[in-house]
Amino acid sequence: MSDRVRTLVWVDGRLKLIDQTKLPTTFEVVECTTYQEVADAIRTMKVRGAPAIGATAAFGVVLGALEHRQDAPSDFLLAMDMIFHELAATRPTAVNLFWALERMKKVILAMQGEAVTSMVDALVVEAETIANEDVDTCRRIGAVGAPVITRGAGVLTICNAGALATVDYGTALGVVRAAFEAGTEFHVYTAETRPFLQGARLTAWELVEDNIPATLITDNMAGWLMAQGRIQVVIVGADRIAANGDTANKIGTYTFAILAQHHGIPFYVAAPLSTVDLALASGKEIPIEERSAKEVTHVFGQPIAPEGIDVYNPAFDVTPAHLITGIITEVGIIRPPFAASLVQAVGRT
Amino acid sequence: MSDRVRTLVWVDGRLKLIDQTKLPTTFEVVECTTYQEVADAIRTMKVRGAPAIGATAAFGVVLGALEHRQDAPSDFLLAMDMIFHELAATRPTAVNLFWALERMKKVILAMQGEAVTSMVDALVVEAETIANEDVDTCRRIGAVGAPVITRGAGVLTICNAGALATVDYGTALGVVRAAFEAGTEFHVYTAETRPFLQGARLTAWELVEDNIPATLITDNMAGWLMAQGRIQVVIVGADRIAANGDTANKIGTYTFAILAQHHGIPFYVAAPLSTVDLALASGKEIPIEERSAKEVTHVFGQPIAPEGIDVYNPAFDVTPAHLITGIITEVGIIRPPFAASLVQAVGRT
Repeated sequence: MSDRVRTLVWVDGRLKLIDQTKLPTTFEVVECTTYQEVADAIRTMKVRGAPAIGATAAFGVVLGALEHRQDAPSDFLLAMDMIFHELAATRPTAVNLFWALERMKKVILAMQGEAVTSMVDALVVEAETIANEDVDTCRRIGAVGAPVITRGAGVLTICNAGALATVDYGTALGVVRAAFEAGTEFHVYTAETRPFLQGARLTAWELVEDNIPATLITDNMAGWLMAQGRIQVVIVGADRIAANGDTANKIGTYTFAILAQHHGIPFYVAAPLSTVDLALASGKEIPIEERSAKEVTHVFGQPIAPEGIDVYNPAFDVTPAHLITGIITEVGIIRPPFAASLVQAVGRT
Repeated sequence: MSDRVRTLVWVDGRLKLIDQTKLPTTFEVVECTTYQEVADAIRTMKVRGAPAIGATAAFGVVLGALEHRQDAPSDFLLAMDMIFHELAATRPTAVNLFWALERMKKVILAMQGEAVTSMVDALVVEAETIANEDVDTCRRIGAVGAPVITRGAGVLTICNAGALATVDYGTALGVVRAAFEAGTEFHVYTAETRPFLQGARLTAWELVEDNIPATLITDNMAGWLMAQGRIQVVIVGADRIAANGDTANKIGTYTFAILAQHHGIPFYVAAPLSTVDLALASGKEIPIEERSAKEVTHVFGQPIAPEGIDVYNPAFDVTPAHLITGIITEVGIIRPPFAASLVQAVGRT
């Protein structure tokens, strides 16, 4: 059992979140008592990572519902509509956000006519279920994926698909943790992941905390590591997987997939099935969030670029399915052709 | 004519250098009055970029020689040996450093038996010649390379192969400047170039100063830009080119070359022939400098990674010749097979 603090915890009607913008220098827990605070925490990336965003948004719904606990049913439903809308508008790419909000909406739809207070109680239960299921799902992803890390392997990852990107344990880092717990000897290379530095700030922090052998690199070193034979497998998370297997993930992932193909290295995506969006035929339809120029031009408030320079800051890119060796999910490793295997896997859940 | 301040200027027996560690927030000129200060400026990257390092080292030799102007000839030669040795030990990868030191050594060798003061005067002349030739060479590289930038092109570059990497005008940015002066419309994408951020701090600064349309990206965005059809040509500098065309340049260059090949985009190296090292058969023999972990873990003194994380920080990588479309030099664009064409081009100078 891990003694990690969960990324998000629901206690006494408040949502406690590790403030991920402060790591690794400061470990600080923030409390959200309103859905607006939750929306803000997602928007400003105090909490990030597709599964963590989903579970956090679910508790955002709960906080909104609690505020309207005394409303007449019609007022409650109207208020909840607005709350769902605001939470959905926080970040566009990770589908787990919409998936979690959809689950919360279904609770309300299934209870039409019942007392508002009963609905609110049911929403609390559903949010807690989403969070607990996420931990279980990550453990399963870990168990399923652990064998892709062989003895002596160099494992490259980008961004943070760790405990901090989920409720606990992680997806890509879930696989790493499971392999480590199984006693496999290997070495992780964590790419710092500009501009928000999740790889340096969060993944490196998790790996140091868990004593998993790891080396920090800048993103532009990945190709050179591969050329030297130091990488045997790439494992990344996902923000949205289209029906054909095309995968949106942190900017830089696409580059790593091309590098892996060039060097003949397997490239795995590790994600819960809640990240699969069968409604989108291909990655072309996935909306890609562009974030503020200041994330690129400033590091901790300090300018690293001249004033007046134009900036492009897409938060994600899309890796086409043909570059992906397999998608490690809670029900097994999904292999190409993904169009068939993803439908089958999602159908099983 | 440009009104840029030259990267290095020899005035009144002192070497004035733009302190490139302070840009883009502060424009500061430092003065070196001893060869040790010059060695330190190279080591700490106050001055960087292969051609600039070469010219700077030449003036380092001059400063050392001036200090020993009154020595007996044998003492002078002994002192110069040590000075050459210390300057050569500053940075291992860029061959222009050794090339410039070799030119300075030849001046002394050719004047054996003459007065020390005459030798010192000749060394001053040779250093000034190296610096002036570098400006001329960059202008020629620009003229030769300008046609590779076509109307409407997106031009990707990494690190700083600009005026600041040379005495003036630049190599890769020399090509950009020449195309801009010729009235071609195009757009530059400058990759920030972690860890030292030469692309964000220096290249972006040069482009803004010259009003050349440009966008700053993080290094991990390059693949995604190419996937979107926004890049038509990649142009980078070089720190050392082996006899077979394998090219050492800033870490990340190799990754860009693979990305360019994957997307069918031409990939050019722009460098003076002084960067070609015919003594090395291939890139495998090029020594790759590893720099301090702190360059990766800290940005302007602020930690971005947890304590205790291991770091890998190679300053350069080697792009194999087969990924290079052409090498833009002062005598023309050298094309594959490089083994033959490089020997021929160097022979012509």
